[in-house]
Amino acid sequence: MTPSTALSHSSAFSKEAPATIHSLHESKKQRHVLSIGDLDDATWRHVIDSAIIYKKAGVPSKPIASGKSLGLVFLNPSLRTRTSMELAAQRLGANVTTLTPGQDAWQLAFGDGVVMDGVEAEHVRDAFAVLSRYVDALGVRVFASGTDHEKDVADVMMKEIADAATVPVINLESAMHHPCQALADAAVMADHFDGKAAGKKFVLTWTHHPKALPMAVPNSALLAAARSGMHVTVARPDSHVLESSVMDTASTLAETHGGSVMESSDMDAAIEGADVVYAKAWGGPMTYTDPEKEASLRTSLSDWRVTAEHMASTRNGRFMHCLPVRRNVVVDDAVLDGPQAMHIDQAEYRLHAQQALLEHVFDC
Amino acid sequence: MTPSTALSHSSAFSKEAPATIHSLHESKKQRHVLSIGDLDDATWRHVIDSAIIYKKAGVPSKPIASGKSLGLVFLNPSLRTRTSMELAAQRLGANVTTLTPGQDAWQLAFGDGVVMDGVEAEHVRDAFAVLSRYVDALGVRVFASGTDHEKDVADVMMKEIADAATVPVINLESAMHHPCQALADAAVMADHFDGKAAGKKFVLTWTHHPKALPMAVPNSALLAAARSGMHVTVARPDSHVLESSVMDTASTLAETHGGSVMESSDMDAAIEGADVVYAKAWGGPMTYTDPEKEASLRTSLSDWRVTAEHMASTRNGRFMHCLPVRRNVVVDDAVLDGPQAMHIDQAEYRLHAQQALLEHVFDC
Amino acid sequence: MTPSTALSHSSAFSKEAPATIHSLHESKKQRHVLSIGDLDDATWRHVIDSAIIYKKAGVPSKPIASGKSLGLVFLNPSLRTRTSMELAAQRLGANVTTLTPGQDAWQLAFGDGVVMDGVEAEHVRDAFAVLSRYVDALGVRVFASGTDHEKDVADVMMKEIADAATVPVINLESAMHHPCQALADAAVMADHFDGKAAGKKFVLTWTHHPKALPMAVPNSALLAAARSGMHVTVARPDSHVLESSVMDTASTLAETHGGSVMESSDMDAAIEGADVVYAKAWGGPMTYTDPEKEASLRTSLSDWRVTAEHMASTRNGRFMHCLPVRRNVVVDDAVLDGPQAMHIDQAEYRLHAQQALLEHVFDC
Repeated sequence: MTPSTALSHSSAFSKEAPATIHSLHESKKQRHVLSIGDLDDATWRHVIDSAIIYKKAGVPSKPIASGKSLGLVFLNPSLRTRTSMELAAQRLGANVTTLTPGQDAWQLAFGDGVVMDGVEAEHVRDAFAVLSRYVDALGVRVFASGTDHEKDVADVMMKEIADAATVPVINLESAMHHPCQALADAAVMADHFDGKAAGKKFVLTWTHHPKALPMAVPNSALLAAARSGMHVTVARPDSHVLESSVMDTASTLAETHGGSVMESSDMDAAIEGADVVYAKAWGGPMTYTDPEKEASLRTSLSDWRVTAEHMASTRNGRFMHCLPVRRNVVVDDAVLDGPQAMHIDQAEYRLHAQQALLEHVFDC
Repeated sequence: MTPSTALSHSSAFSKEAPATIHSLHESKKQRHVLSIGDLDDATWRHVIDSAIIYKKAGVPSKPIASGKSLGLVFLNPSLRTRTSMELAAQRLGANVTTLTPGQDAWQLAFGDGVVMDGVEAEHVRDAFAVLSRYVDALGVRVFASGTDHEKDVADVMMKEIADAATVPVINLESAMHHPCQALADAAVMADHFDGKAAGKKFVLTWTHHPKALPMAVPNSALLAAARSGMHVTVARPDSHVLESSVMDTASTLAETHGGSVMESSDMDAAIEGADVVYAKAWGGPMTYTDPEKEASLRTSLSDWRVTAEHMASTRNGRFMHCLPVRRNVVVDDAVLDGPQAMHIDQAEYRLHAQQALLEHVFDC
Repeated sequence: MTPSTALSHSSAFSKEAPATIHSLHESKKQRHVLSIGDLDDATWRHVIDSAIIYKKAGVPSKPIASGKSLGLVFLNPSLRTRTSMELAAQRLGANVTTLTPGQDAWQLAFGDGVVMDGVEAEHVRDAFAVLSRYVDALGVRVFASGTDHEKDVADVMMKEIADAATVPVINLESAMHHPCQALADAAVMADHFDGKAAGKKFVLTWTHHPKALPMAVPNSALLAAARSGMHVTVARPDSHVLESSVMDTASTLAETHGGSVMESSDMDAAIEGADVVYAKAWGGPMTYTDPEKEASLRTSLSDWRVTAEHMASTRNGRFMHCLPVRRNVVVDDAVLDGPQAMHIDQAEYRLHAQQALLEHVFDC
């Protein structure tokens, strides 16, 4: 019995055709959540509704996942994801164990037929087959390689892990997707707009950053807003477009839900009249595997920084960012410490959304 | 209902004027515990009494903190503090999650208005605002910078973290304070002297060490002994005096409780007739930001090492050290492995004292 | 009440004389488990029987170790051991805390009378005396030094830790022993052969590997198979014999249980007709402290790799490996991904065997 049962039948999302957003993985009858495409419309809405209820009600009154176990594997650093997943599992009564390969566990090898005479001591195929025997679900973070654009766009590493696992895998950020962030983003907006996010103006704006970052968060924020039926503008320099496949999926999703997706290379104009400004840095596709060229390309783009003036031009819009955020590079202190900032609420929703998602994945 | 309720009204500490020891932080109606100045006299005594009861009774019979969550953040290494805090929380029935920024989580930036284009990916202001949404209390370790004496003495980093948090922060060792160590030290002495630590001779002696160490532990041990009403001697070379502000607070505290504080630069004479010898190395104020000069200064001070002869000159005194301890540099094996050593009991009291402190902080 | 009480009286192992396999440590009335020699015959059999029951029944219905605490200390990396121990403890209802000295905790010093003026900040004597006050049992991993053959063979570091601890220490892999692996290996074979492992042909074969590895796993696999009454062949180049003391113990054990132990330097011939092929790399005794010489010695031994042809020559034998395994160096993909592979079941048994072992150690 989940907290939002009473609400799930009246969801505004139930009109979505199941086919508009595809799963990344071959169906193996596991409840993998590699992207929000793995959640059908009813589940997507149900998890968001449950998250809002958890935000208000706190911990469930019964340990509904008692006896279940969650394994977390971080191939990259984390603050919010690690803590909120560990706590979400514990709040449901589940056991949890966390690994950071390369630190406390062996470095992992990927790929078919690899002759393992290098530094990697264990293959993902064996590691995740074993871990699947210990737990009822796995959460895995594996960032983009940054060295192979095509493989990263195909989310090859996360798929290889999911293929090796025999229990559900929750993507905790891969090269291309971050479904837990998407759920939290959709939930905090649903809460803020009192269930009426559809039709609102959502601006996802690229920003300057000292390093070229992966695309998982912008992709997921875009898809979350589109699936919420918002009118989305992606503001970015022409050198930093998002993948066309993701843009296309977002457009289809938005249309299905009464929204729209457009692009702009004029940050200031895009932000005007926005209900939400979502800032995020990412690497450009033309320089994806060349950090030096990417850095020099971005030298002239340091004006792409969200300021108090930007926020003043919105329709009393909220500022969002997935965190961690580079203060005064991505966005000014005045915005983060001001009344329009919603990034802390947004981060809080990670806990509530993941608690609701675990209920779904554990099927409890 | 805490275990020592019955004792708390008859505490010998209740004579202390609330104003003798100040809190480090502006009151925000949070139960921050940044130094023992944040615990009023009744609470200080209550936590110590509870710790002694926990030492005898073990785990509480009911999970009194069930549904509560504790977040631990270690910006520096730990053995006792990490394990004893994790276990204390679990023994009370609380959930717990632990982060080590720079290893499993992002490196953190401090300070106002910083332009974050360096290696630090997240500002403490955002990190601790978010973590405050996930947990009911935070434990944080952040050592002295060693590069800015004035800022370290003002405990600027810990205060900045406490200001960012919206739940109680327990200081797990900052530049200047280690209140959990102080509580354990006071508790193990209260237990050993059967509640009659007041009036006993307590010698805090500086020792040689391969590195210049921070002042948090000597400060906290000094304040704990003073608040316990002991006659305290701080034995140290003239080059290694403690901060005058801390010495002054300790003197006032000791006088309030019928004790006294004096200083000596003669280690052997100071230790004679002691009831407790507390060994600790720390850096000298004149060379605080110059490790090489500090090291050369200490070359001539390698005799500052507690020996069996020292212990034989005491009044059957106990040896204490916060650990980790450099054997045969700070103190000889003969002392640590001999009958007067109390450092293992002292370390055990970390668990019991923190369990009692968590009860106070969780208000359960 | 443990799950296998009903079975323990009818154990086929109860004929073993208690004296055939010695404990590594002086008896201190603690239930240390440093090698399988610390488990008497009835306990050895009981833990294996319980593991098989746990494999089928899953989590025990009651938290039988509620209120108990387990401390885990990893001086070396781990994937399976860390996760399966953390989960085994939680499944029994116990609290658990995990340390990785050198990362989140201080580097540890070993040895008598050491003057600690180097990088190690804490001595094992103090660290494990303290941790013993916090928990009811400790699990510790400390690999071979690789620099002192004699000390490694005597398992000096693990013994020093066990001597310092005042609660039971479970060896999670030392220089010479890995009793949890031995229990899992014996249990998976007992399960696979339906309790009739005795009399089967078990081949432990050395393999090529990019690094010289310690002997704990081959020793433990050998002892487990011998204690299971199997006919064991150790296939290895003459340069890579196992310690004669271990070979002797294995022979005695095997004979007691109706089995035998022989050696061969012909891998292909040894594997023919095997019921189990257990692959493992280890360093040779002649080059133990000289990695470069060891590496050059092994250059000519890269044919020591288990192939599909090898497995086809067995009596429909199972392939085993403790993991992590170097694919296509130690063993071919075709074996690991083929129908005769049992390494994932074997790894799963770590969880079940350790859960049963913890029941024994906690005495619950």
